[in-house]
Amino acid sequence: MTQILGHNYIGGQRSAAGGLKLHSVDATTGDNLPGDFYQATPEEVDAAAKAAASAYPAYRSLSAERRAQFLDAIADELDALGDDFVAVVCRETALPAGRIQGERGRTSGQMRLFAKVLRRGDFYGARIDQALPERQPLPRPDLRQYRIGLGPVAVFGASNFPLAFSTAGGDTASALAAGCPVVFKAHSGHMATAEWVADAIIRAAEKTEMPAGVFNMIFGGGVGEALVKHPAIQAVGFTGSLKGGRALCDMAAARAQPIPVFAEMSSINPVIVLPQALQARAETVARDLTASVVQGCGQFCTNPGLVIGIRSPQFSAFVQQVAALIAEQPAQTMLNAGTLSSYGKGLQKLLAHSAIEHLAGSAQQGNQAQPQLFKADVSLLINGDEVLQEEVFGPTTVFVEVADQAQLSAALNGLHGQLTATIIGEPADFEQFGELTALLEQKVGRILLNGYPTGVEVCDSMVHGGPYPATSDARGTSVGTLAIDRFLRPVCFQNYPDSLLPEPLKNANPLRIQRLVDGKPSREAL
Amino acid sequence: MTQILGHNYIGGQRSAAGGLKLHSVDATTGDNLPGDFYQATPEEVDAAAKAAASAYPAYRSLSAERRAQFLDAIADELDALGDDFVAVVCRETALPAGRIQGERGRTSGQMRLFAKVLRRGDFYGARIDQALPERQPLPRPDLRQYRIGLGPVAVFGASNFPLAFSTAGGDTASALAAGCPVVFKAHSGHMATAEWVADAIIRAAEKTEMPAGVFNMIFGGGVGEALVKHPAIQAVGFTGSLKGGRALCDMAAARAQPIPVFAEMSSINPVIVLPQALQARAETVARDLTASVVQGCGQFCTNPGLVIGIRSPQFSAFVQQVAALIAEQPAQTMLNAGTLSSYGKGLQKLLAHSAIEHLAGSAQQGNQAQPQLFKADVSLLINGDEVLQEEVFGPTTVFVEVADQAQLSAALNGLHGQLTATIIGEPADFEQFGELTALLEQKVGRILLNGYPTGVEVCDSMVHGGPYPATSDARGTSVGTLAIDRFLRPVCFQNYPDSLLPEPLKNANPLRIQRLVDGKPSREAL
Repeated sequence: MTQILGHNYIGGQRSAAGGLKLHSVDATTGDNLPGDFYQATPEEVDAAAKAAASAYPAYRSLSAERRAQFLDAIADELDALGDDFVAVVCRETALPAGRIQGERGRTSGQMRLFAKVLRRGDFYGARIDQALPERQPLPRPDLRQYRIGLGPVAVFGASNFPLAFSTAGGDTASALAAGCPVVFKAHSGHMATAEWVADAIIRAAEKTEMPAGVFNMIFGGGVGEALVKHPAIQAVGFTGSLKGGRALCDMAAARAQPIPVFAEMSSINPVIVLPQALQARAETVARDLTASVVQGCGQFCTNPGLVIGIRSPQFSAFVQQVAALIAEQPAQTMLNAGTLSSYGKGLQKLLAHSAIEHLAGSAQQGNQAQPQLFKADVSLLINGDEVLQEEVFGPTTVFVEVADQAQLSAALNGLHGQLTATIIGEPADFEQFGELTALLEQKVGRILLNGYPTGVEVCDSMVHGGPYPATSDARGTSVGTLAIDRFLRPVCFQNYPDSLLPEPLKNANPLRIQRLVDGKPSREAL
Repeated sequence: MTQILGHNYIGGQRSAAGGLKLHSVDATTGDNLPGDFYQATPEEVDAAAKAAASAYPAYRSLSAERRAQFLDAIADELDALGDDFVAVVCRETALPAGRIQGERGRTSGQMRLFAKVLRRGDFYGARIDQALPERQPLPRPDLRQYRIGLGPVAVFGASNFPLAFSTAGGDTASALAAGCPVVFKAHSGHMATAEWVADAIIRAAEKTEMPAGVFNMIFGGGVGEALVKHPAIQAVGFTGSLKGGRALCDMAAARAQPIPVFAEMSSINPVIVLPQALQARAETVARDLTASVVQGCGQFCTNPGLVIGIRSPQFSAFVQQVAALIAEQPAQTMLNAGTLSSYGKGLQKLLAHSAIEHLAGSAQQGNQAQPQLFKADVSLLINGDEVLQEEVFGPTTVFVEVADQAQLSAALNGLHGQLTATIIGEPADFEQFGELTALLEQKVGRILLNGYPTGVEVCDSMVHGGPYPATSDARGTSVGTLAIDRFLRPVCFQNYPDSLLPEPLKNANPLRIQRLVDGKPSREAL
């Protein structure tokens, strides 16, 4: 690896027009890391958005196969990033090398999966209604529909996944797959990582002869607002805090032309522990649940922040078991000083609340996060107290005890939208609590049985989304292949001769894709 | 038909708690029609939204077949509305009986098409990724995804389609199909029509034993704001003006929980007339184009409001032909006094503009709309002058002459988002102007060749949508079966036993629907 340059990425060139220099920080020591990063000037933000807009007509018109080759090339470049790269990421995030190696594979795998989606062709949503010239009282013209990319997409990377939800992460992958050039706003928490990954993307773009401007990246703290407000930007992907995500939504809605924002924000991911499961395997559940709470220092969007059980001697014993386990967990270094400070403030709110009891965990101090356990009165959920609705990002969870099945429903109904909900139970529990699935469906994007929500599989069926405030638009997902849908819109051709139709809609079906022809799925030529 | 009652429809009951009475008006004479309509009080708006919310859990959980039976029953009830009903609609809208009879068939046909979509089952978007217990380094759990209705939907009917875009129109049909109860805000222009249609829906709901509150309707001028801001409402469908639609978008975005708004608003639907077509058949084009401009008094969202051609003796002659035809067209009665007044104001703006020339049409006066023809300087398009971007709703169109092919592209690039664009040309034109399709795809939802944009087929492939300001979200359509997608969101089940999965995701595939199983479309049982 060459030295970090720290310049913005605009239309295939590097640019450092501004005077404001930023530094990346060693997450463990807090020391500045070598190298300067140049905050993008307003002119550079404008140039980046315009570069993406210039690339859009050519890029969106490329065949799906060409775009798939680009994504595959990015995947190869990511896999080729070696130990020196992993060391950079570890320094910037304090995440262990094994985790970063795994995340690298997840990120390249995600790119390859979207390449597969492109080759499968179902993302086109191709539909054909053939002409009915003899229909009475009026003939029907030939009508055909497919989907195209919306236009340039602004992507804001997450602090907690420096690879999988960042520069070449799921939002970037799904936008590029959809035919949308990207302007990526690098997260201040891992700018050197971002530079390595952006270089990998640019190498892939050059090797596969993509238009300059297909991928752009800007550095800086205050540059996101100008990006979201730029007329060339047609959609926004974001992973981060509720406050940050909502601010972007409000900006996007207030534009002369409002644009969609897909913000994945705040979720407390309730876990419901049912009686027979406690009877059968309380110890295992306590151990696995604790592991999920402290995994990655609790810095996952799907971290279980709320555990609900029904009052019983077994549940009381279970709470004690988890308390004992949490007390044993070591402190861990967080992603950055801001995250640690937020964690401390979140804990203070819980500690200060009269209806919340502290059950386990050493006092929070120093530069690491201490795992914590709390117990809150169920009235906080039923009455909609905000204290339990806000995600405390870090290795902590809150237990809630309900009196009975009816109060369990009342408590769950009090919850805001979530990414996930988890039910731990035995077959006899599922019979007794049969209403839970329908109730939770209305609250969340993913329901798990006898698993733990951390660990989000990248596949066709995944939903990493959910009702507000989990995300800004429950109709999208930011993980899994359905993520591409966020950046596509339908276009219809009426009475077009075959020669002028795009490939996915031609009579001969040259792409051999499945299409909805006169109301029936078909791969046949017409 | 019994007498008009004029009460609001709330949870299967009628309610008239308020003191403010409204009257429907004979569109031709301006006289009040018999019967009072009671504006919904704030409490009634709240009750209507809550009735929809109460119906939601039961209604969304019904099988697709049950919902299809409901839609079919609505269609039957609509078809059974007889000549007395048609007479009511004609009095309220001044639209001819033949048009209303046709629109009735379109509206019932639309309901039946969504019933077909429900039975086809592709709206579920069912996806299954089977467990991979042996995968290294981590096993993959079983993951399955389908889509559910978002929740109660508020629908605002259009003035210009008293049936097809109103009480039982496309937004209502697609929301009900998706499993979303509806609160319909009746348009003040046809409240008696709304009552007849609402009664038909309620009869169908009772016959098919739908939950009370599956369909609700409120009357009144100022009630829409409270409806859109109501916490129970989860999405909005709207057809109307840019000003009205944008106001709803802004309200929805400012809610504690922002919700999606699908507003179909303003479009001028450019028609591009290419040289060889003028050479071959200028007279036919002039006649058909004029017919499209004045059809239904120009009161269609897809009315061709802009005609662009390349400077030539043929184009000059063509303009003269259309001018002569427009001058011959009779005045027509508009939907209501408000529409006529807006038309007059729109014409005034065109007449007052120094770069716009009036070519044909009698002076606008009296209580009918006079067809008009204008010619504007191309600089207005290229420089983005707002005067040509605003839809003038009524029987008028504006010609623009461009110098050459390059200026044609520049003019089209200056356009805002549109529902449609139309190209009139011969094969030699399409060769010469090959870049037009790609350019127009970026601007519109539907591109027509050698047709006219009025007349929107209800089918799988239709897109009645497009970039802002044509609609508030280019990813949706308000006509055609894809409209159901607006009101659905995905939910994922992880590690669920077969017995607890919803029907569309069960191993045996009891609904016999196509599903994406491990990346491949399949109708097989697992």
